[in-house]
Amino acid sequence: MVKRDSVENRRSLLPIDSATVASATVSTFSAGNTTAALRLNQISSHISPPRRPLQTKPAKMPVSTQAAHPLTLIPGPVEFTDEVLSAMATPSQSHVSPQFVEVFGDALALLRKLFMNEDKSAQAFAIAGAGTLGWDFVAANLIEPGENALVLHTGFFADSFADCIKTYGGVPTQLVAPLGDIVPLEQIEAALKEKPYKVVTITHVDTSTGVLSDIKTIAALVRKVSPETLVIVDGVCSVGVEEIRFDDWDLDLVLTAPQKAIGVPAGLSIFIASGRALDVFKARKAPPASYYASLAKWLPVMQNYEAKKASYFSTPPVQNIHALLASLKQILEIPLETRFAAHAKMSDHIKSTIASYGLTQVAVRDGYRAHGMTAVYIPEGVVLPEFLGKVAKHNIVLAGGLHKQIATKYFRIGHMGVSAIGDDRKDFELALSAIKESLAECGYSA
Amino acid sequence: MVKRDSVENRRSLLPIDSATVASATVSTFSAGNTTAALRLNQISSHISPPRRPLQTKPAKMPVSTQAAHPLTLIPGPVEFTDEVLSAMATPSQSHVSPQFVEVFGDALALLRKLFMNEDKSAQAFAIAGAGTLGWDFVAANLIEPGENALVLHTGFFADSFADCIKTYGGVPTQLVAPLGDIVPLEQIEAALKEKPYKVVTITHVDTSTGVLSDIKTIAALVRKVSPETLVIVDGVCSVGVEEIRFDDWDLDLVLTAPQKAIGVPAGLSIFIASGRALDVFKARKAPPASYYASLAKWLPVMQNYEAKKASYFSTPPVQNIHALLASLKQILEIPLETRFAAHAKMSDHIKSTIASYGLTQVAVRDGYRAHGMTAVYIPEGVVLPEFLGKVAKHNIVLAGGLHKQIATKYFRIGHMGVSAIGDDRKDFELALSAIKESLAECGYSA
Repeated sequence: MVKRDSVENRRSLLPIDSATVASATVSTFSAGNTTAALRLNQISSHISPPRRPLQTKPAKMPVSTQAAHPLTLIPGPVEFTDEVLSAMATPSQSHVSPQFVEVFGDALALLRKLFMNEDKSAQAFAIAGAGTLGWDFVAANLIEPGENALVLHTGFFADSFADCIKTYGGVPTQLVAPLGDIVPLEQIEAALKEKPYKVVTITHVDTSTGVLSDIKTIAALVRKVSPETLVIVDGVCSVGVEEIRFDDWDLDLVLTAPQKAIGVPAGLSIFIASGRALDVFKARKAPPASYYASLAKWLPVMQNYEAKKASYFSTPPVQNIHALLASLKQILEIPLETRFAAHAKMSDHIKSTIASYGLTQVAVRDGYRAHGMTAVYIPEGVVLPEFLGKVAKHNIVLAGGLHKQIATKYFRIGHMGVSAIGDDRKDFELALSAIKESLAECGYSA
Repeated sequence: MVKRDSVENRRSLLPIDSATVASATVSTFSAGNTTAALRLNQISSHISPPRRPLQTKPAKMPVSTQAAHPLTLIPGPVEFTDEVLSAMATPSQSHVSPQFVEVFGDALALLRKLFMNEDKSAQAFAIAGAGTLGWDFVAANLIEPGENALVLHTGFFADSFADCIKTYGGVPTQLVAPLGDIVPLEQIEAALKEKPYKVVTITHVDTSTGVLSDIKTIAALVRKVSPETLVIVDGVCSVGVEEIRFDDWDLDLVLTAPQKAIGVPAGLSIFIASGRALDVFKARKAPPASYYASLAKWLPVMQNYEAKKASYFSTPPVQNIHALLASLKQILEIPLETRFAAHAKMSDHIKSTIASYGLTQVAVRDGYRAHGMTAVYIPEGVVLPEFLGKVAKHNIVLAGGLHKQIATKYFRIGHMGVSAIGDDRKDFELALSAIKESLAECGYSA
């Protein structure tokens, strides 16, 4: 494992320069854009952690000793710990070496803990790709051409999941919640009674709205009304921050991405599939509809690595898996319940502070708001790119809107992982005051 | 950018311990397995680079200052440069930040140079995934259900590519070369005259045999005999080490993976598609047969990033893209012709040394052997796992066999990138003597 550089070296390594700053653009699809860092030298002492010697033993949620850089406080990628970044720089290892087999096996075992899974008929997967690829795994393996999928729509990502299901021949039916709200249970029940659905998909946290769905209750409803239907959870912005009890809640597949509350750079598709889901896959009549996203190819590979045996279908991303293990070890140093509660506390703080500025959230319903992100309407008269640009001058990167209907009218704050719950971090003290000052500079006062 | 640790720190950071060593297993699919590192402390001075202060300016092919670790000399993953590993540890950046947009755009522009491409109707792609995913891009976008694909078979990977094509409804016909040999041009010509083929696929270097195909001549033949047929090159073990002139040779798609001669950790699917290929895609009747591997989704994203505009379909692997840019910059510091020649020189040296030991190669034909790897039959009476285990005791990781017919009868050496052509590297001096000594310990003498 490679350790980080000395404090002396880092001082001169500012990753921002005027050339990159000059190219700043704003996209309607965009998460936040930083537009300037001219004051960086003056204010970097606020952004950077206290200058102190590298700790030989990491604290539970270690303070960053990274080079000064804009704080990325979007709904993923999040800020990473030093240990995770060091693991990304692991020197080369053969993907079938005993060293790597050990690491991959441990990562898969710890993923089970993250999903609160003990039932060995389930299997966790970590595959080179992205959260998006998890949809392909669902659509190409668990749904056969012509079969129905009930897609609960609480934002942008349900449209994409439905699009993915259609690609492989499934027939999605969307139950669309009012903007910022959840799909009522009665609607779900009525739909399930109308025709047989092979799967129900739920976006646990829709990153475009910050709406949190109650997957526990929905899963129980599905199991009662339509016991054969597989319960699929898109946990991209929820795994690691929201409570998910895979076994207890009788879920069938939860998919996610590493760059959110798992705190690992993007580059992996992570999911867990239940024994029931794997049986449904094995009983499939048509072959898997994807080659790379084929459970037939990957299931034996994951089973082998978890049993500490090398296996090959496609070369795994050795360094990303090292980083995954490093982060899972850090996450699981404290009980998950404690982690969820700490995130909830920070989320409450951010949401109440935002409210005290006179701003309102996109997610409208109490109890159905994400704990790892907040989507906030900008006030009348404030222009989004201008506001985000001003925030960026504080070296705080926030995200723009993503939901088509309101993309230019709101911004998003990500509060997951080390930024939200790390010891001695001031990320959101800085971010909230940057938001307040920037609103004032845009002519708004609460 | 994060710099590496001091020499003092690294000395104590040996990544091997007896626990991981004890779990060593051998798989028939396996690349090499290291089985022990008990003598590591004694011999690490041979494996590690000379202890000297970290260079502030990298040499063209910089000496590694990484922690002592077994040298990975397999046909990918290869050893990485310090600069590439440092880039893997880049602190978090938003995927739509101007800083990252700049990096991604530059990486895509430099990929064109790596493929010797200037024609802007072509487009380079770098997507979270693996080399394998490149096959899905071909099969799901360029071939429609029922269309024919001519697959030239020079080893294991043609079977897999054909399997992938079938998954999406294409109809592969394989022309199978004798083991270790190429497919004769006359056979290719005859096949092309027999019926229309949408694509011809060529494995430039089949990693299971070390056979090098003459893609220039085959491409010219295809263009003459069947001008509409797209020429697809699997360049997984060739891009960055074998000559590929995308424009001049009129190729249509070359796909590869980063962990071979591009010298970047696994985790990306990299390819370039010609204007002709993109036109064929756009004229497609059926929609793309994959969601994640859809050219429709990714083409605008790549075009936007290359134009230095943020764009979103699925979150790109920010750190892996930083590493790709770092490596491309290093590769392109010297003319590609010089790089190819340096690899050829090392390849000749390895192949002639191996021959002087009395060993024969799997690739049988002069002029059709890879320059980045060598597949070598073990002598009669020597047992493969025992031999690889002894080599591993020298902290040299070689790969086992991969071709079904002969998997237990040969081993593979990878000689790509910094290990093969870096300044002051002794990787193959050490590897060749480890091979010689291990053979002797197994009772073989030339």
